[in-house]
Amino acid sequence: MNLYIEEVEPTKALATFLADLRYEDLPQPVIERTKELFLDWLASALAGRSARPVQILERLAAHMGPADGPSEILVSRRRTSPLFAALVNGAASHIVEQDDVQNEAVFHPGTVVFPAVLAGAQDIGAPGRDLLLAAVVGYEAGVRVGAFLGRSHYRVFHTTGTAGTLGAAAGVAHLLKADPQVMIHALGSAGTQAAGLWEFLRDAADSKQLHTAKAAADGLLAAYLARDGFTGARHILEGKQGMAAGMSSDADPRKLTAGLGERWAVLETSFKFHASCRHTHPSADALLQALQEHQLTAERIAHIRAHVHQAAIDVLGPVNDARTVHQAKFSMGFVLALIALYQQAGIGEFTEEALQDPRIREVLGRVEMVFDPEIDAAYPRQWIGKVEVETTDGEVFTSRVDIPKGDPGNILTRAELEDKARRLAAYRQGASAEEIEALITLAWTLENQADIRDLLPREELA
Amino acid sequence: MNLYIEEVEPTKALATFLADLRYEDLPQPVIERTKELFLDWLASALAGRSARPVQILERLAAHMGPADGPSEILVSRRRTSPLFAALVNGAASHIVEQDDVQNEAVFHPGTVVFPAVLAGAQDIGAPGRDLLLAAVVGYEAGVRVGAFLGRSHYRVFHTTGTAGTLGAAAGVAHLLKADPQVMIHALGSAGTQAAGLWEFLRDAADSKQLHTAKAAADGLLAAYLARDGFTGARHILEGKQGMAAGMSSDADPRKLTAGLGERWAVLETSFKFHASCRHTHPSADALLQALQEHQLTAERIAHIRAHVHQAAIDVLGPVNDARTVHQAKFSMGFVLALIALYQQAGIGEFTEEALQDPRIREVLGRVEMVFDPEIDAAYPRQWIGKVEVETTDGEVFTSRVDIPKGDPGNILTRAELEDKARRLAAYRQGASAEEIEALITLAWTLENQADIRDLLPREELA
Repeated sequence: MNLYIEEVEPTKALATFLADLRYEDLPQPVIERTKELFLDWLASALAGRSARPVQILERLAAHMGPADGPSEILVSRRRTSPLFAALVNGAASHIVEQDDVQNEAVFHPGTVVFPAVLAGAQDIGAPGRDLLLAAVVGYEAGVRVGAFLGRSHYRVFHTTGTAGTLGAAAGVAHLLKADPQVMIHALGSAGTQAAGLWEFLRDAADSKQLHTAKAAADGLLAAYLARDGFTGARHILEGKQGMAAGMSSDADPRKLTAGLGERWAVLETSFKFHASCRHTHPSADALLQALQEHQLTAERIAHIRAHVHQAAIDVLGPVNDARTVHQAKFSMGFVLALIALYQQAGIGEFTEEALQDPRIREVLGRVEMVFDPEIDAAYPRQWIGKVEVETTDGEVFTSRVDIPKGDPGNILTRAELEDKARRLAAYRQGASAEEIEALITLAWTLENQADIRDLLPREELA
Repeated sequence: MNLYIEEVEPTKALATFLADLRYEDLPQPVIERTKELFLDWLASALAGRSARPVQILERLAAHMGPADGPSEILVSRRRTSPLFAALVNGAASHIVEQDDVQNEAVFHPGTVVFPAVLAGAQDIGAPGRDLLLAAVVGYEAGVRVGAFLGRSHYRVFHTTGTAGTLGAAAGVAHLLKADPQVMIHALGSAGTQAAGLWEFLRDAADSKQLHTAKAAADGLLAAYLARDGFTGARHILEGKQGMAAGMSSDADPRKLTAGLGERWAVLETSFKFHASCRHTHPSADALLQALQEHQLTAERIAHIRAHVHQAAIDVLGPVNDARTVHQAKFSMGFVLALIALYQQAGIGEFTEEALQDPRIREVLGRVEMVFDPEIDAAYPRQWIGKVEVETTDGEVFTSRVDIPKGDPGNILTRAELEDKARRLAAYRQGASAEEIEALITLAWTLENQADIRDLLPREELA
């Protein structure tokens, strides 16, 4: 790495690394983790199958896109052009809130990178190895751009939508054999399309699915345009009228290049254990620990005080009274009530029935969220969970978890990942038992797959 | 108009007006002006036919979109789905820099609104009258959002890309018979996709075409999604995590609703006379006046001092040495040199040959741009042109133009508009003489056209 370029032209330094990365450069743990992330993403996409916003986007794809093509829409099993496959799969894989997350960037890489690189790989008939490498590139780009844009960006912008566009673009550009210059153009065209505002949270609107769908599709579009000679700004990230200038007040260019080739974004990405917004997980883990250590039941709990970082208050704050399943996943009260009552908050717990359950309503009324300076200072590098539980007989227990379940250092085992994938595939019949077993096998052998053009049978699931 | 709603929920007030607007509500001058804007846009789109970025986007449309459909791609004469017709026509109609502009918002409404509403109207088989009304709605939404976002927004963001997405969405949503609630959702989904950064100017990259293409296509996409029940944020403009919060520091919500139904955005839109960036026009007009009044020739000019507003320096500043035709249109020196030498800066003057012309190079070296507080204070409501010309024999002439040619108050006549359309259509053979005459006739009778599905013959132009 040329240190001068790194400092003066961080976009160029990053693009050069991304374009030049070869499969032989990847350490074995990077390869293995990427396969795990691929399976985890696939299962999340299947679980999003019957969600209303996903179905509306699938209808749009049918109206606006070609009726056949090389790329799979996993939820409908139709084939279409890569743009629309990326669009619909991007929408589908984020809706059950079980897809991966990178803590420092507060960014969900899988749901934007995999839809794009899978659609592109299927378009050009690339083997599993190239898909895997493209995913590594996409994660690296997206996570670094997200970290670069910083906390000020995340306060208003949905980083998965914005940084995600560049992650998708970088991965697809690598598949399309971009040299460093073409990679810069792909990032330039992606950055100037990057969008996504948190305002929708207040109304529980469908925009979250639009953000992931469009990040995947727009990033893919940027990469194809760059391949054909369409140019983009050379300093889209750090330039005077670039992304940081317009959308951040604490951007740190060092995040774009520090430790390139030594640290790997895929190894710093967390799997989700609970089926809720990531900001609820540390508190959920801490509460679970308190329940187990002190043999508490929901009936004995008089009050729960969840200590959180500011971003948790920003994101979860507007949701005071969950009226939809999606809102429930963004309600700290709802999530902690599920943990208190059932010791889990998985995809099976977030149901329409649960929304009406008076027991849950009662417990969630005992939950309070408080800002904690120590937790906030550690965030987003570390997501600390701390809860104070007051019992009906006046005892107070404090429970703390330094690494939430699913984070690097407390990762899910392959058996746990397979189990999660099976549950996600079974949810609203996203795939049959045989199909998910085949996908699990495919994921664990991804680098040896010569052809990944038919992950699922063509016909519509009964 | 409910004054309470207007203040507390400006997005709702604007959306209600837009959704409820009927053809019968339009004053005759609004109808007539919209037909003029339509012709002016059509001709600009035809002139963009052979530009490289447009052709790359057309190739993308062929790869990603359907091979046939209801909507026309004007530059290739192919038919496809409305999304890709909006995309390619949006790219084509801005590249020769001859399309319309609204001064206060510093926003080019035609190039983002017409591609979207034409594609949508052709999709549903709407008559000319509905197209016209949808365009009025789109201009109203885009111009008001652009003015709302203000000058701080324009410093980093390309308002035509951002506000343009909402203009396109509003127009198409009206075509698709959105009620006020659906209109709010369309604006919400459009606003959360809104993007476009000026950073590309520094490198003369192709992003400007991407911005107009994507604004038209993304806005159209938002409208179709809203029709099918996809929801968006209710306060996407003024909300705490909405567009203004993320992308402006001087947003003024009154701009969204003041004088709705009394002032009309189409009547406040300017036609372009010179084929360059709008920020060069006031100075070009003032120089032209100086040449005529004082019978000056380029040889006698020793120095030209162009007095400008800050945004002119921001946008034109980075271009010091025009290397491409597109950059030349953003170079104050180049534009004023053309005026000094040829008394015009039309589409025929911006050529590859001109870039190499030593006479132009010599004159542009005598041009200086200076910030003028009075002009800046009047901007963007008024675009004042003022130049000081120093002659080789030491005379100094100051020339001032308060309303540049093409602005409301100094508008182009229908004969001038027809002449401009003919020249644009002839440029690189965008359309034949017979075809542009037919389009002129169609534009002047737009409100009586029952079918606008075939503006141009299907076959590729020889």
